[in-house]
Amino acid sequence: MRAVNFCAGPCTLPLPALQEAQAELVDFEGRGMSLIEMSHRSPEYDEVHNQAMALVRELFAVPEDFEILFLQGGASLQFAMVPLNLLSAGASAGYVVSGSWGKTAYQDANHHGDAYPAWDGAADSFTRMPQPGEVEIRPNSRYLHVTSNETINGIRMTEWPDTAVPLVGDMSSDFLSRTIPWDRFDVIYGGAQKNLGPAGLTIVFVRESALAETNRDLAGYLRWDIHAAKNSLYNTPPVFAIYMMGKTLSWIQSQGGLPAMEAAAAARAGLVYRAIDESDGFYRSPVDPAARSLMNVVFRLPDEESEARFVAEAEERRLLNLKGHRSVGGIRASLYNAMPMSGVEALASFMESFR
Amino acid sequence: MRAVNFCAGPCTLPLPALQEAQAELVDFEGRGMSLIEMSHRSPEYDEVHNQAMALVRELFAVPEDFEILFLQGGASLQFAMVPLNLLSAGASAGYVVSGSWGKTAYQDANHHGDAYPAWDGAADSFTRMPQPGEVEIRPNSRYLHVTSNETINGIRMTEWPDTAVPLVGDMSSDFLSRTIPWDRFDVIYGGAQKNLGPAGLTIVFVRESALAETNRDLAGYLRWDIHAAKNSLYNTPPVFAIYMMGKTLSWIQSQGGLPAMEAAAAARAGLVYRAIDESDGFYRSPVDPAARSLMNVVFRLPDEESEARFVAEAEERRLLNLKGHRSVGGIRASLYNAMPMSGVEALASFMESFR
Repeated sequence: MRAVNFCAGPCTLPLPALQEAQAELVDFEGRGMSLIEMSHRSPEYDEVHNQAMALVRELFAVPEDFEILFLQGGASLQFAMVPLNLLSAGASAGYVVSGSWGKTAYQDANHHGDAYPAWDGAADSFTRMPQPGEVEIRPNSRYLHVTSNETINGIRMTEWPDTAVPLVGDMSSDFLSRTIPWDRFDVIYGGAQKNLGPAGLTIVFVRESALAETNRDLAGYLRWDIHAAKNSLYNTPPVFAIYMMGKTLSWIQSQGGLPAMEAAAAARAGLVYRAIDESDGFYRSPVDPAARSLMNVVFRLPDEESEARFVAEAEERRLLNLKGHRSVGGIRASLYNAMPMSGVEALASFMESFR
Repeated sequence: MRAVNFCAGPCTLPLPALQEAQAELVDFEGRGMSLIEMSHRSPEYDEVHNQAMALVRELFAVPEDFEILFLQGGASLQFAMVPLNLLSAGASAGYVVSGSWGKTAYQDANHHGDAYPAWDGAADSFTRMPQPGEVEIRPNSRYLHVTSNETINGIRMTEWPDTAVPLVGDMSSDFLSRTIPWDRFDVIYGGAQKNLGPAGLTIVFVRESALAETNRDLAGYLRWDIHAAKNSLYNTPPVFAIYMMGKTLSWIQSQGGLPAMEAAAAARAGLVYRAIDESDGFYRSPVDPAARSLMNVVFRLPDEESEARFVAEAEERRLLNLKGHRSVGGIRASLYNAMPMSGVEALASFMESFR
């Protein structure tokens, strides 16, 4: 029996995508070999690659003047590649330090360029996002880096900072679950292993005008412009991860694409937040209501002992991976694109009965 | 019917490994989800991860004082990470420019440190490896970089340069098919997508004493020491690639481990080179006999038209991907660990009948 998997990532994938991949794993389209045994320069892989690329462009509604890159190393490698590619001597970059990920992005950037905190939520224990006007941009800033959703802290950037400098966004954990105001961004990136597919693939969107000015004094793999010029086939790509993302995207397309994902995300999270808000204080959301994440709903119970019991009893009902991140504790229900509404209903109903 | 796949990478994998992965793909060990949907911090994945790590250590006979890292980005990312981690101000590094890959490694290193060519095979069109005494090491060299096998040019380093400085080796294309003289190396790295598994995983071996002195002024993902300290779980690892490598390694273990792979490699390549040498000049090997690769056997026919016909007729017999790399032309038969002897026999027999 299929479990309900609330894991924060890697996470639940659409069952039809898994079943299709299973059927094809040993022999791909009657070729006498697996896709993962084929050259990344073969016509078979080429089709898989370009189809995934086309689906990304269609479903994310990526404007014509953005390049799409399929890379490896996770958002973590982009924490280095963003400043390496964008920051030249004399330029600096502001970082919205909104939680665990925004903080790491900021610290990493400082090793490869002049980065500064344009806003820091540490004083509020990362329970909210910056208010309009709170973000401070210094002169000569090349970009402002934002983390659209903080997976660990359970907050999301509901409103984008209103700044003159272009935004660079880490959207790992709410990729393809919300509309992107492309005109505000020069770069958007994220790992695929939450809303889009399995681990091992990072997607980077770069505006062509930004790409034209990136640093070139870097090894090939670190250069966005080279990956763009080579259609993300500069070196051997992560074949299986791209293939599985393609299958996941086809499923998303069949469900109605981004508008459907956006509506489903609001509906799923709404159900859990309602269960929290209507619990007479038994369940508590620690975050600013205006910044509640639709992907990672974090909440607390009266004490840690209850939390441990909650996780254990949920597991008995096949509601898995509800334990909060080890750095913050509590409960976390991650509700990515492939999470069925029935799974969330089972959680809400369990929350009521447990209380 | 299973084809015989001579692809240079990604390439043929052991059929039992593929079949096991297929059986488990939708539901891993009865957990109600796929392994690729599980947290990389879950006990299930932990076991897969650590088992793969233990198999690498056992089969490669990795000494105690080397750390094993599972990374992403291919050997290409290591072309940057090697100098970033090892080269401090004032130190330089020699590169053996032995072919396409050695050349790229050298050029990439130059963006991140002071690299120089310690030997260059371009004058001989990369058809041989350096002779003893030909490699020139400059003062203040931190390491000498070598490419143990040049996949495109079809040559291998039969004898390691006899230098006082430690070696750093890119062994992507002959990983786990030859014994490694560990005492000569500080670092060895390579992509897994030839002898070890599917694309999307890079293995790096670093000597602990070298790790203790690596540069720390880098973003987290670029630091070998951080990956080592975190058991390669600093960020989300490429779960599926590590899992499939584990299965491939189990198969290699069942076949007799490295000694068996080494013997099989010599036997496979020997058969094809014999078919070349005994063809009265119809087939020609363009490389120095002393440097003939055991992994990638390249050869030419009297003219390009015959080569095209050779590839086409081979395909009719399900002998696939024999076309040489686009940069050098000709024929290339890649014979990695999972290539069965029967496949090579079919090729040798076809070579005779085609002639």
